[in-house]
Amino acid sequence: MASIFITGGAGFIGSQMAERLLAEGHSVVSYDNLVLGKREFLVAALRNPRFRFVEADLLDLDRVVAEMKGADLVIHLAANSDISQGAERSDVDLKNGTIATYNTLEAMRRTGVRDVLFASTSAIYGEASVKPTPESYGPLFPISFYGASKLACEGLVSAFTHNCGLRAIVFRFANIVGPRATHGAIHDFLKRLKANSNELRVLGNGTQRKSYLHVSDCIDGMLYARKLHFDTEKKPPGFFECYNLASEGVTRVSSIAAAVVDEVTRRMGTRPALVFGSEDRGWVGDVAFTWLDGARFATTGWKARLTSDAAVEQAVRDIARQIWGEDA
Amino acid sequence: MASIFITGGAGFIGSQMAERLLAEGHSVVSYDNLVLGKREFLVAALRNPRFRFVEADLLDLDRVVAEMKGADLVIHLAANSDISQGAERSDVDLKNGTIATYNTLEAMRRTGVRDVLFASTSAIYGEASVKPTPESYGPLFPISFYGASKLACEGLVSAFTHNCGLRAIVFRFANIVGPRATHGAIHDFLKRLKANSNELRVLGNGTQRKSYLHVSDCIDGMLYARKLHFDTEKKPPGFFECYNLASEGVTRVSSIAAAVVDEVTRRMGTRPALVFGSEDRGWVGDVAFTWLDGARFATTGWKARLTSDAAVEQAVRDIARQIWGEDA
Repeated sequence: MASIFITGGAGFIGSQMAERLLAEGHSVVSYDNLVLGKREFLVAALRNPRFRFVEADLLDLDRVVAEMKGADLVIHLAANSDISQGAERSDVDLKNGTIATYNTLEAMRRTGVRDVLFASTSAIYGEASVKPTPESYGPLFPISFYGASKLACEGLVSAFTHNCGLRAIVFRFANIVGPRATHGAIHDFLKRLKANSNELRVLGNGTQRKSYLHVSDCIDGMLYARKLHFDTEKKPPGFFECYNLASEGVTRVSSIAAAVVDEVTRRMGTRPALVFGSEDRGWVGDVAFTWLDGARFATTGWKARLTSDAAVEQAVRDIARQIWGEDA
Repeated sequence: MASIFITGGAGFIGSQMAERLLAEGHSVVSYDNLVLGKREFLVAALRNPRFRFVEADLLDLDRVVAEMKGADLVIHLAANSDISQGAERSDVDLKNGTIATYNTLEAMRRTGVRDVLFASTSAIYGEASVKPTPESYGPLFPISFYGASKLACEGLVSAFTHNCGLRAIVFRFANIVGPRATHGAIHDFLKRLKANSNELRVLGNGTQRKSYLHVSDCIDGMLYARKLHFDTEKKPPGFFECYNLASEGVTRVSSIAAAVVDEVTRRMGTRPALVFGSEDRGWVGDVAFTWLDGARFATTGWKARLTSDAAVEQAVRDIARQIWGEDA
């Protein structure tokens, strides 16, 4: 059983990753500044004696080094994942993305922790001309500060791997959805409809299409790759791999809105009106159409349980339960 | 005539860029922390009343903002360009590359300066499987901290362009050589031979091949693209272009060593012995074979005056004059 250090370990994905690893018998340290993460997500984990929570910031390098000591694996999930905030505050992603990632990798170098799983994003592809987009796609010109930061982080992971003997697997995430989501279209739609169920105004004209992946599949994929490359194949120091982590297909924003409206109608007994905008994207920096090619990861034998559409449908139910307070 | 703000403006390329722009009638502010830049490179520029030198660091954002005000164009050259130092001090490139570039772009946003020319590098390609390597190459997994930082910077330029209405041209530099070079193989070989002309020990086995570009062609290419896209074509805000900036061909380290040995023999009357190492690269993080595809930039009508081999030969003479103190 391993000792695993999760950054963003009280967040949407991190807290569920912690629970899964604890269930498998591992020890887990969740490191989180609680900006996006929530203490309430840790309720289950905190009952386990193999779990430790550290409320601290990755910008505090000395603290990261101190807390990381003795870990066998780092799962680096921390980031400003609320991508639509990025444009207004251009340094959020630089600090909480790029510099935080540098500190995480530098702490690994200093403490001798060798293995890392890193959460990257489809946003690094910018407005890719090839769809579905494979990992080998270039050029990489992200249009959001979030995407720019994740590209910077990938470069750092690559350089640390090559220069300091780390072993790394980079996962370019689709839009991850499911319980504990704290933002994103599903969460946003449901929250606004709970406050006012008459009408849902959607940013953009609803034609935006994206790859969605359920958080359970996301966690499953990451741990599958870890087991394969680090445990079974025992890759040497310097190993670097990069996978798109996605499900089958893409889902339109209009479909998400429709699924949300159905859920709200069922819950509140009245059908909200759907009003779309005229723009073909949700906000400046939004990529209107992303479609990740999952073929490379599929060659290892992994496959997401839920398609993009099914992940969205499941997540609408997951997130509605949470917003209506039924998960307490 | 324009007012032009050059970061790294007392450096190898920046000081010669300043002289060229002054000769064309522009006003120039050279901003440099004099870590790699040298005051002696500014002797000619400082005689011109249209030139102003600011000794300050790009990490001081308020200062950058204050000094940049009123500029029409930013030429962002500042970086830790001594790539072989990167592996030992992993945060040098993060600070002087990534964060310095963020500050430069953020200062542009705050001061309303719209146009930027950015010096990127072939190192972003890492160990590319396609040679010559075009701008569209992917995936981008740099193996040096320098390359990782420049990749981060490109992402930032792209995001700022898209979100804040900048116009940007990114140049992925070949190895730039010529007068005022402060490091690199030619400089290093000549300096060591001046101290001990018996023998030259070369890092690596000499088979490393790279694209070399003379600094005069580098400056010429950047200003050509600026004139074309910003002045003639008057591209709209949000414009982003990326070119490999290279000459024809590649040059082996063994050829560089031979040219240096010839020059030293001519100067000192005795032929140094050449001793190669056994490694196929110069240092960890060195890319043993880089070959930039210049076809994209060539479609605009630009061509380097000197081939890679000719640039090296010219630079050996340029740098020898400087090391033997004949440029004073």
